Amino acid sequence: MPNLSPYHFITEKQSGREHLAADIAAFIDGFVKGRIPDYQMTAWMMAVYFKGMTSSETLALTEAMLRSGETVTHDSLLNPIVDKHSTGGVGDKITLILAPMLAALGLAVPTITGRGLAFTGGTTDKFNSIPGFRSEMNLDDFKHQVADIGLAFVSQSSSLAPADGRMYALRDVTGTVQSLPLIISSILCKKIAEGIQGIVFDVKCGSGAFMDRVPYARQLAEGLVHVGTSYGLDSVAVITRMDTPLGLAVGNWLEVIESVRYLRAETTPPDLHELTLSLGSALMQQVGAVKHANEARAKLEQVRDSGHAWERFQSAVERQGGDLRTLDTLEHPLKPQCKSGLEAPKDGIIHAMDAREIGFAAVDLHAGRRRVDDEIDPTAGIVLHRKTGDRVTKGDLILEVQAADQELCDQALQRARSAITIKEHQPTADPLIVEVVTPEGTMPAAQYFSA
Amino acid sequence: MPNLSPYHFITEKQSGREHLAADIAAFIDGFVKGRIPDYQMTAWMMAVYFKGMTSSETLALTEAMLRSGETVTHDSLLNPIVDKHSTGGVGDKITLILAPMLAALGLAVPTITGRGLAFTGGTTDKFNSIPGFRSEMNLDDFKHQVADIGLAFVSQSSSLAPADGRMYALRDVTGTVQSLPLIISSILCKKIAEGIQGIVFDVKCGSGAFMDRVPYARQLAEGLVHVGTSYGLDSVAVITRMDTPLGLAVGNWLEVIESVRYLRAETTPPDLHELTLSLGSALMQQVGAVKHANEARAKLEQVRDSGHAWERFQSAVERQGGDLRTLDTLEHPLKPQCKSGLEAPKDGIIHAMDAREIGFAAVDLHAGRRRVDDEIDPTAGIVLHRKTGDRVTKGDLILEVQAADQELCDQALQRARSAITIKEHQPTADPLIVEVVTPEGTMPAAQYFSA
Repeated sequence: MPNLSPYHFITEKQSGREHLAADIAAFIDGFVKGRIPDYQMTAWMMAVYFKGMTSSETLALTEAMLRSGETVTHDSLLNPIVDKHSTGGVGDKITLILAPMLAALGLAVPTITGRGLAFTGGTTDKFNSIPGFRSEMNLDDFKHQVADIGLAFVSQSSSLAPADGRMYALRDVTGTVQSLPLIISSILCKKIAEGIQGIVFDVKCGSGAFMDRVPYARQLAEGLVHVGTSYGLDSVAVITRMDTPLGLAVGNWLEVIESVRYLRAETTPPDLHELTLSLGSALMQQVGAVKHANEARAKLEQVRDSGHAWERFQSAVERQGGDLRTLDTLEHPLKPQCKSGLEAPKDGIIHAMDAREIGFAAVDLHAGRRRVDDEIDPTAGIVLHRKTGDRVTKGDLILEVQAADQELCDQALQRARSAITIKEHQPTADPLIVEVVTPEGTMPAAQYFSA
Repeated sequence: MPNLSPYHFITEKQSGREHLAADIAAFIDGFVKGRIPDYQMTAWMMAVYFKGMTSSETLALTEAMLRSGETVTHDSLLNPIVDKHSTGGVGDKITLILAPMLAALGLAVPTITGRGLAFTGGTTDKFNSIPGFRSEMNLDDFKHQVADIGLAFVSQSSSLAPADGRMYALRDVTGTVQSLPLIISSILCKKIAEGIQGIVFDVKCGSGAFMDRVPYARQLAEGLVHVGTSYGLDSVAVITRMDTPLGLAVGNWLEVIESVRYLRAETTPPDLHELTLSLGSALMQQVGAVKHANEARAKLEQVRDSGHAWERFQSAVERQGGDLRTLDTLEHPLKPQCKSGLEAPKDGIIHAMDAREIGFAAVDLHAGRRRVDDEIDPTAGIVLHRKTGDRVTKGDLILEVQAADQELCDQALQRARSAITIKEHQPTADPLIVEVVTPEGTMPAAQYFSA
């Protein structure tokens, strides 16, 4: 039977009928090869936004996008090949920390990193703030680095799942970024192309995440685990709160500093530590590297405290051209020309520190992009001196912003000020780790980690 | 306040919020001027398909599309300037008949005609089957012809509402043809650009129409009358059945023959006659040319029987280059190479003659287009010898098809056969004229025409 015409393919979705896998494959192939124009792709994606996709359709879409490009295979590796994915947050430097910890524990971690989006930071941008670091490399070099040091950070390339790059660019300007099946297929086609065997998804919900409600995050988490599992990946998703920035640094080089100091065991921000251990242990348990999550937590703490993770991080950075001396001294050759502090306007307790607004304040400072071709200032960003739940006295320094000039700092400070609420009582503390989704089901985090 | 970015404009509609008129104007203007790409337009139109538009939004969209091009003004004319629009049917040649009747009664009828779509015929294609006829002309010639003869048929040009042509082409390939606000604005931007003062809409429902259900047709009719009235047009819509082809001919030149013979009072197919009088009298009453619809019916019958409408038709055709001798003899220089008849397979009563399938059978014969650039065979088509409700004896000729070769005829005959149901009892007769929609409200046709 011949495939549906693009027109009938669009109207099939529009009327809520289910696509055949072969028709999805033909549509994506036609798009990648230029036979199907952008304007039919965006109309179809808008119909998907409204009508959704079944699990089988999402799987078929992932497959079609995966097949649009090359896939990496790590034939010579015996250790489990794993990765971690975050749906994006503010101050989220977990990849910089967890990937070397896992590598130091003997897992191979070939990571494809992305750029920052809207108010969220991107791992590619963070690595690129290290002087000399090259986040682009060809697939052969990528494979060799993973084989040699078990760890590589490569920015999304056009040879892996090229359909995704083009579809994402169109979604970004036509309002279809927030479609579950499009999110799921976009994430997984790239992860599967990396050649991994196991993955942990950090699905964030809250003001500083693209999803603010738990039920929606749960749907995404379940979809990611379903499609990942269908591809034979050991998959687990952890739903986590992102209402307040993670750790104490927001901004690329500032987050590298925080990550390095964490890896060197000089600092241990509780939320960063907890999330790193939770994601790492869920992944290790899922791939069968440990029997119980608790065992994994102990190993992860050990591999940090021993300095092995820090060594592995340096090896990867060095291999990718990064300047180890700068990492060592944490003195960036570029200096922000301007710093300003935000002081507590009254006594009380920090009731909320809206992560989305803090994220946008960082964009104001040029730590992120307003437009795709905006230049990033590597050292711009925000350092938090207080976090949600902390008591402050009028005049206490809550946070500092730094950027290239005073105007940027003033603008960001104004935004940061509006992000912070001070009240007389403690806020209700939402747990950082909400739920865990495995192929067997969804359960509260406490239940999963105590099992 | 600056206008919304295209992205925010799309997401505003996506989330069901109402657009500001200024933002709609900016979006359409940006599209026409090439600042907004097709892929954002199709995404927005798909969002409109799902979320609809309010009356004010539809009005603003019509205005924006109207302003994308020129508008005609008929300054020197004192007679009411009117037009008629049909949402499209099978065998629908009413424009060819009613326009010259209205012109002969002293109204001015500047008609912009369209091409056939899917299974429905197009008035442009019908006129183009007359040897020598030119359906394209510039706006000055159009105005002069209307001033001189009160009647002109021009095919949609790129100078009137160019936004519509481009948006329609995109809707056609992305499944958004069936969106009420997009239909309403598309129809009205062109009609308003013609410079008319009054209009009657023939909103068809049934198997041979784009809308099969009355409630949906009513929504469209009410929307058309609302927007028309907002522009100061005397507007009335008549909801009519299109379950079976109108008259006895389907196909371009065959429909010209039927129209000419009707205008010469040589033939009076009851459904064609009834629909012509109903639409004509509703329009004449709405523009105040008569006090009561019955008065208009009498005038319309008179202007046909007197031959004045036929004269007016010939004047317009001659002015547009058409060969009057062919019209006179009704002998087309091209002859179909093949004719085949469909005979009744058994005794009984024709219970149904599915207009959509008959329309597609005409497309099979090349009386219509499968693709936009298909060539039309002017003399191809179908002549009905029996209609729904007629008694037949086995072997009676029900219809004849004609085309360029036997293969086309065989294919069309097979489809036509499946369109016809013969039973032993009479079908329930749905009235041809269902409802009338005026700015004052919607009422059953019987009530309107007896008032």
